[in-house]
Parts: sequence; C-alpha cells; structure tokens
Amino acid sequence: MVPHLITALTGPINELEARLLDSMPAIERWFRLERMEHTPPFYTSVDLRNAGFKLAPVDTELFPHGFDHLTEEMLPLAVQAAMAAIEKICPEAKNLLLIPAACSSSFYLAHLQRLVQIFTLAGLNVRLGSLDPTLAAPRKLLLPDGTELALEPLVRRRRRLGLLNFDPCTVLLNDTLAGGAPPVLRGLYEQYLLPPLHAGWGVRRKSRHFQSYEEVAKKFAKLLGMDPWLITPMTGGHARVEAGDGHGFEALRASADALLGKLRRKHKEYGIADKPYVVLKADDGSGVGEGVVTLRDAADLAAPALHAQLFAGGAGAREMLVQEGVPTHERINDAVAEPVVCMIDRYVVGGYYRVHAGRRPDENLAAPGSAFVPLAFAECHHLPRRGAKPGASAPNRFYMYGVIARLAMLAAAYELEATDPDAESYE
Amino acid sequence: MVPHLITALTGPINELEARLLDSMPAIERWFRLERMEHTPPFYTSVDLRNAGFKLAPVDTELFPHGFDHLTEEMLPLAVQAAMAAIEKICPEAKNLLLIPAACSSSFYLAHLQRLVQIFTLAGLNVRLGSLDPTLAAPRKLLLPDGTELALEPLVRRRRRLGLLNFDPCTVLLNDTLAGGAPPVLRGLYEQYLLPPLHAGWGVRRKSRHFQSYEEVAKKFAKLLGMDPWLITPMTGGHARVEAGDGHGFEALRASADALLGKLRRKHKEYGIADKPYVVLKADDGSGVGEGVVTLRDAADLAAPALHAQLFAGGAGAREMLVQEGVPTHERINDAVAEPVVCMIDRYVVGGYYRVHAGRRPDENLAAPGSAFVPLAFAECHHLPRRGAKPGASAPNRFYMYGVIARLAMLAAAYELEATDPDAESYE
Repeated sequence: MVPHLITALTGPINELEARLLDSMPAIERWFRLERMEHTPPFYTSVDLRNAGFKLAPVDTELFPHGFDHLTEEMLPLAVQAAMAAIEKICPEAKNLLLIPAACSSSFYLAHLQRLVQIFTLAGLNVRLGSLDPTLAAPRKLLLPDGTELALEPLVRRRRRLGLLNFDPCTVLLNDTLAGGAPPVLRGLYEQYLLPPLHAGWGVRRKSRHFQSYEEVAKKFAKLLGMDPWLITPMTGGHARVEAGDGHGFEALRASADALLGKLRRKHKEYGIADKPYVVLKADDGSGVGEGVVTLRDAADLAAPALHAQLFAGGAGAREMLVQEGVPTHERINDAVAEPVVCMIDRYVVGGYYRVHAGRRPDENLAAPGSAFVPLAFAECHHLPRRGAKPGASAPNRFYMYGVIARLAMLAAAYELEATDPDAESYE
Repeated sequence: MVPHLITALTGPINELEARLLDSMPAIERWFRLERMEHTPPFYTSVDLRNAGFKLAPVDTELFPHGFDHLTEEMLPLAVQAAMAAIEKICPEAKNLLLIPAACSSSFYLAHLQRLVQIFTLAGLNVRLGSLDPTLAAPRKLLLPDGTELALEPLVRRRRRLGLLNFDPCTVLLNDTLAGGAPPVLRGLYEQYLLPPLHAGWGVRRKSRHFQSYEEVAKKFAKLLGMDPWLITPMTGGHARVEAGDGHGFEALRASADALLGKLRRKHKEYGIADKPYVVLKADDGSGVGEGVVTLRDAADLAAPALHAQLFAGGAGAREMLVQEGVPTHERINDAVAEPVVCMIDRYVVGGYYRVHAGRRPDENLAAPGSAFVPLAFAECHHLPRRGAKPGASAPNRFYMYGVIARLAMLAAAYELEATDPDAESYE
C-alpha cells in the first residue's frame, strides 16, 4: 500500500491509472513475491514524470535526499518502515552510524536532521561520522531550526568502523560516493554497510539501472497485459565523450536518431500529438541539472553550446546516456512539477513535488531555482456513496506513483544484484 | 516506535515515563530480540490504566474491536503494518476471508468496515464469511455511512474454508469464539487461521494471560532496573463460583484478602495515599462490564447484591479472577478515561480513549454508556529549541502507552505458545 497523498493530477482517471487501481491485489501480491527473491535497497527516492499518456521513472537515487520534504504527519510511516528495515537487517542493533554527504546547504542539513529523527524514533542511538579525513574533532552542524547535530571523526579499527566510544552494528551511507569508495569504508565484513559500496555513483551507471528497469517493467506489464512502454522511458545507447573529440558524440547521435525514430512510431501508434524528444544525461549521475539536455533532433548534438555545457567546470570527459524524454504535465501554481517518491525498505513513506517556475515541461527540474512542495495526506471523503467499493471512496491517485516508484526500487535491487562484486560468495 | 498521539496526560512527566523515554533504544532493541523468539498475535488491542504511580494493562483482546476509532490519518500506518503481517504469513496471498462476530451494532459494523478497508488497501481481496450455519445466501450489512458489505455463507471443503468462488490463503477471525471453536473452523491445515483457535475465549483465561504478563514484565523491569509492580497489575487467585454455593467464594475471599494486604504494603513502600482495592473479573472474558466488580474489602464478596450481579442473566457458574484494581487518573472533559492501544502484528497503529461520564476512576469503563475518543496525532512543535535532542522536541507521551501495550501483546505471544494444543508438532 501507498499512503493516500494529494497529487497535482487533475482531469479524469486515465486508462493506465484505472488499470493500476483495479489491479491492486494482483499488483501487491506480485511485489510481495518479487521481494521474496530480491532485497529492496535500504532507502530510495525516485523521480517520476507523468506525461498523461505515460508515467515513467527518470531517476532512482539510492542515497536519497529530501526526506525533510515529507510532512510531519508522514513521520510515523517512515519510522515504522525504518523499524521493519532494521529488524530485518540487524535485530540486535542499538547504534546506527550515519555518514552524511559533504554538503552543508540548509536543505541538506534539514534532511539530515529528519534522517536522525526517523532512526532515533525507531529506537536507535544515531551519531554522525564524517568522511572528511582531516576532521580531527567533533564539529557542530547548526540546523535551520536552531538546534545542532555533531559530526564526528570516523574511528577505523581493523574490521569495524565507528566513532569514539561508539560501535555501531549498521553504517548508513548518505553520500553518493561519486569519487569511488574511500578506503575507510572498505573491508567492513563485521558490520552492515548500507547501501553497499557498489551502489555509489563511482560504480553505478544509469544505463545499467534502466536495463534492470526494462526487465522489471516487462514482467510487470505482462502481469497487467499492457505495453511496457507506458511505464518505461526508452533508453538508447551510452558513450564516453571527450571535449573536442567527435567520436563518442557520433555514437550518441546515431543512438539519439534511432531512438527518436522509435519514439515517433510509438507516438503514431498511440495517436500522441506531442513531438517526441530525447534527453542526454550523465550515465554516472554526475552533473545533475547542468548535465541534462533536451534534444528534439539528433543533429543538435553537434551544437557548440551543448559541448560547452557538458564540459563546463573543466571536465575532460563524460559518460553520457541517451534516453527518451518524458514530459511532465503536472503543474503546481502554474509551475512545472514532477513527483518524487520516498521509500524506506519496501515501503513508500511519502513524497513531494519538485517544482520549477522557470522551466518547461520537457526540461529537467532538478536545477538551480527548483523548489519543493510536500505532498500532504489527502483529505478523506466521508460522503456516503452507495455501492462504492469498500476502501475506495476516493481513488488514491498517488497509488500509481507508488507502484511505478516501487518498480524502479525493485529494478535497483536487480541492478545491485547484477553488479555486486562479491556475488559469488553468496552462492 | 509508536505514533506520536495526543494523550490526556497532564502534569509533569513522572519518573516511570521519563525512564521509558530515556531508555528507548534499549527498549526497542529488547522488543526486537524478544520478537525473534516469540511471534506477535496478528492483531491486538490493550486496555491500559494510568494511575500516575503505575501504568498497567488490564485487558488484552486478541479479536480486537474499535479500529473504527482510529483516525483517518492513522490508516496508512495500519495498512503498512497489515502489509508487513501478510507478507510474513503468506506472501502469495490474494484473498482474505474475514469472519466477523455475530454483532450488528453500528459501532461494530463501522469497525468491520475499517478492517475491510485496511486489508483492501494492503492489496487483498477481502470478503466476509458468517459463522451462522443458518445463513443460506449472502446478506447485506448496511453500514453507518450508507454503504454496504456482503456477509456470505461459509463453504467448507475437506481441508479448506472459503466462500462461493473464493478460496482464501488466510482466514482472519474477529469473533471471540466464546462458545468454543465451531466445527467449521477445525482441521484447516492448509490455510492460515488467525488468530489460532486457542486464542478464543472458549480456551483463553485471563489468569493465564497475566501469568505470562508477569513473566514478560519481570524481564522488562530487569532491563530497566525498576520494580515490575510499576507496570503490572498484581494478580491473585481464580476460582469457579456457583450461584448459592459459598465454596469458590471463600477461595476468592482469601485471595482478595491476601492481595489487599500485599497492595497495602506496596502503597506504603511508595508512599501512595490512595487506598488499594481489588477487582473481580470473569476469567474467561465473559460479561465484560456487568461482571467487573470493585472490592475495597474482601468481606464485600459476601454481599448478596454482588452475587445477584454475577449470576444475572441466569448464569449458573462463573470463573472469576481477583486482580489488583488500577485506578485511571486520566480525564477527558471531566469524564474518566482509559487509553486503548491498537496493534497489528508488532506495530502500534493507533489508539483511542474509552470514556465514561458516569463512572469513577476505580470503576470499569467498558460498560453501557461508554464513549470513544480517537487519539489524534500530536501537533508538532517546530519552535527552535537550542540543545534539544534531535527528534525529541516534544516528548511523545503516548510512547509509554505503546511500550506497555506491546508488553501485553508479547505476553499474549507467550500465552499462546504455552496454551498451543499442537505445540509438540512444532518441535
């Protein structure tokens, strides 16, 4: 189940939404059976885009941010999910070491405070350890609400990681490890390190994730007897491109061209008037915002402005991925909006909208200037409705988002299994 | 964790409450470890009494009612817990057969509707089957909100129970089975029958439950280094009494006398000014309300009015239990109130107050004339509080209730293990 949150969706329930709502028992059973085989990541956030004619995940983060955008009313749900997750992993847990990202924005600090709150209320002693090797003594982090958190130097022993007088059973990472896993986190065979090191962006690739997503979406679509494209962003090729070198760009151009051709046929098949477009995104999760480019014509890949954008900041080479662009047709106060769904373990614990007043529906919203609108629980409609199905008095339009987000979370489970460097040892 | 609900508690946080709040990580860890050994009942409600100097469970129901008193905001929490419970028991579940009590009060129907809603939102097809063997065709139950539920005749095959064209994986009982388990429910070895038949009041005894509770409370009190009496209603003897026969009454009188003596010493030890009292309650859960009697003196057991009360309605014999009376010092709008905590699987999913304007703090409130006040989520206090512990800005006074209720739930798990007639086959 998925909390009943208010969405910005207007208009009648479309065919896809109706099909998902009607198939709830079959869908929930399918998720339960999949989870028996595949362990969900510890926590996940998924960016979705609802184009009306299709709904698809466009980003799956395994070191999620933005939990501060969950409303206070949703906190018990997050805590209950955290309890279930901890109970499964390490029932004897007392201490949780949280390793935050090296980010000191007030948004991030509020998120960090929320994480500490969730795991404290789940019954754990939570302390923060810093990946900064130069940190010699605890440092105070002043939070937006005037309170403080202490960030402490990590203490590494041979096989365990902790803090001074603090030996955790579980180490929870909230840093994306974009630069690869630091030595201090390697070889921790006596503790649970969550998510695992190979979930870091130093190893992960979006192309690999969406390959798993396609596999999951195909299975799911077969269950419901529908076209998987309605819930999948079609993914093209990926290539390493270098500044001033046309080679990788040519591969991307060919891929974008082929993808646009496929999309035109799909749009024709479904009678979609909108012209399809593709996006170019960093395969390794880097450069969110600045690095996502909308292309309506593969030839645009040659544009000097695009090259300048990709290599801004002095990057010499980048791994880029071509993917179907999914426009978002949701609006909050006239600003373009896309839902972000937050999950802990297998549970949807809430969501929020990322909105950007200065962007178009076909553009990336995770860019400077974006704002966040928490999704509140829907007001319940208690009007008597004769003959209404029990529990269904007001359809939960957020349910659909929870289903697609959970498909992306399940895809991440497939992905992490496929990319696990220690996979042999599990046999 | 326990949702943060508004309690009627006023006054400063007392020592017991402070100790429980401070020991949260140790408490939650202890519960997790206990749960590894002992399976929580499927759902439970626990009546508590907060006397200020002590807080104790006075009734643990394994076929709970009153889920309609949970607020709508708490529904996602209940659904999440139901999902976790179902996933553990029968991940391939699609169909749930709910067997309600033979009760058609509007309160009960609203509770039933809520149960259907919870399990429907957890992703199950839920249908209702009747224990009434004379029911030949589906009967409509008109709900207070104008909608309907269908109550259908049970269809028993050799080893399975279902309805016409409905084969459930799990059968959920909400009838207390006070008259013993009907044959239609016996020998269902291919399905999950929850709670098990020996949880019915035809088999269960309060004396046995509180014996388990004492065991659990002792372990828990040892963990916190406190006197278990602060969370335990002291339980005396139980006896079968017959109308017009003094024999059983004499045993009860001796027990009540001894118990009052012990309680006087306890009150002296703690400097409690209130005079202790004991209650006489039906050991087999029968006659709730009419059958709970407050005694300040063991000699009162001879009072003819009491005998008349016990055997009202023509009962020839009753099994009675003597137990410490725990006064409730909570009030809602001047009416005496006691909290009821609702749980699904291991999770506290909400609570409500049972209030009775016409009763005294030392009387039973589960009597005609009682009303119910849902406990709402506490408003969150966002005032900056420098130096406040993260997550602790406003202490969750409902936490304490959740802890004691979970102790009673755990005691029920111990109790069901001890009374399981098929226990050998589990070895």
